[in-house]
Amino acid sequence: MMETIAIVGVGLIGGSLARCVRERGLASRIIGLGRGTENLRKAVELGVVDTAETDFARGIGDADLVVLATPVRSLVGLLGRTAALVRPGAVVTDVGSVKGPILREAAERFPAPCRFVGGHPVAGTEHSGVEASFAALFENRRCILTPTADTDPEALQLVSALWRAAGSEVVFLDADLHDRIMGFVSHLPHLIAYALVNTVRDSEERQGNLLDFTAGGFRDFTRIASSLPEMWRDICLLNREVLLEAIGSFSRTLAALRDRIASGDGTALEESFRLARDLRGRLLEAGIDKPAGV
Amino acid sequence: MMETIAIVGVGLIGGSLARCVRERGLASRIIGLGRGTENLRKAVELGVVDTAETDFARGIGDADLVVLATPVRSLVGLLGRTAALVRPGAVVTDVGSVKGPILREAAERFPAPCRFVGGHPVAGTEHSGVEASFAALFENRRCILTPTADTDPEALQLVSALWRAAGSEVVFLDADLHDRIMGFVSHLPHLIAYALVNTVRDSEERQGNLLDFTAGGFRDFTRIASSLPEMWRDICLLNREVLLEAIGSFSRTLAALRDRIASGDGTALEESFRLARDLRGRLLEAGIDKPAGV
Repeated sequence: MMETIAIVGVGLIGGSLARCVRERGLASRIIGLGRGTENLRKAVELGVVDTAETDFARGIGDADLVVLATPVRSLVGLLGRTAALVRPGAVVTDVGSVKGPILREAAERFPAPCRFVGGHPVAGTEHSGVEASFAALFENRRCILTPTADTDPEALQLVSALWRAAGSEVVFLDADLHDRIMGFVSHLPHLIAYALVNTVRDSEERQGNLLDFTAGGFRDFTRIASSLPEMWRDICLLNREVLLEAIGSFSRTLAALRDRIASGDGTALEESFRLARDLRGRLLEAGIDKPAGV
Repeated sequence: MMETIAIVGVGLIGGSLARCVRERGLASRIIGLGRGTENLRKAVELGVVDTAETDFARGIGDADLVVLATPVRSLVGLLGRTAALVRPGAVVTDVGSVKGPILREAAERFPAPCRFVGGHPVAGTEHSGVEASFAALFENRRCILTPTADTDPEALQLVSALWRAAGSEVVFLDADLHDRIMGFVSHLPHLIAYALVNTVRDSEERQGNLLDFTAGGFRDFTRIASSLPEMWRDICLLNREVLLEAIGSFSRTLAALRDRIASGDGTALEESFRLARDLRGRLLEAGIDKPAGV
């Protein structure tokens, strides 16, 4: 598919993509870039990448495809340097969970026809780092790409082919719509899980005993809340506006339930619960309930 | 262990206990009681109970042990009738998820030494009804019993032995403390899951598209929110005071996170997320993260 791929940030996502590229013979040479020499050494040792490079210019200078897989907030800052240092004709993509700010910056840095393609593989686990990476991570998952009117069709085709070869279903979406959707179905749930776990944590500190009795419900929340703090900090800050709206909407819904409990309105309460339950049924029917990542 | 056990309400919990009693030979005769003749017929057909009885007095009159396993709100009302109709020396227990109101009513209805023992098997699935019942439901789960100073030790021993024979670890807890703990680690998470699913549902109705992209996080919430609406209505109303306090505490925690997002305070945000993540680590270390029910 190509000669050289450079992967910037060899963590769970970057590392899994590298393993995939090697396993399926998608490139002859895989260069891993990053600031953490320890992590890069491990990536070479594990055979995830062919060579490790800490010099950004040297690492991406030869690549046909550069995949930016660093924490999402650092991505915005990397676009300018990447655009300036790639060889002419190279394609650049990213794997960030928030797309609007990245696409706005890319529009400034990459001239039309734009050879940057925004991407978000909707896959992940609660683990992180190159040791947690595995080639099958993207299989049967979705990869959302966010092309614009200026996107070079050839670049879009290359990036689409990469993710399809990784086993993902490729879906095109407007970057801002992507952020809106993810703000509600992924970022808000994570934030709520963090808030709930901390509520129980505070209560435990005041009155003890709670953690001996973590029953159904709570355990699922702790799993979600064990996702990488830095990553979710970045996501929250980058998708701030949507997330603030989503929190507002959720808070109003919770307040309505609280009022129904306070006034003892069992009928309305049951009706709310039934609506929520029906949605689960719709998801199962639509087959949308298949495993997916963060 | 005993001659006759009467199980009032042969649903997921009552049915699973009945299967357990039969499988492990804990009683010679299992009588199933309930108002739904269709469900009782099914329970007999499936061999879950020996005989079905819709007449309450006849059904419980001969029993050595009466297990009240009807929806939790109806339990309070059943205690008076049960106390009046059981044979002298019979033991009565229940499986309700809220204990304070039940124990207060029991104290009125059963003279000391009280042969009623409050119980809460912390087990369940998101399914309901006798068809969903299975004997192993209580294995490696906890069963919380809420004895008081007036509880007859012999009655407590019988009920403890029953749940231990079902494979559960029996734990004694004050009824109000039980409700406090469950309010935070079980009832609040369920309520939040319902609120989140309805938030996404409302947003989907306004802007579409969301349900095609249910990513990690959200799916776990929909599973929790698919629990039986009537049951959770009852739990919310019976444990109202604790739940209102828990909602208040959670809302303040969420509002603090919202403020940190709004002001762009990444350091404080990351710190909050890290605290939540640490709690997961503590649960895993303590081995408390074993599967448990509702």
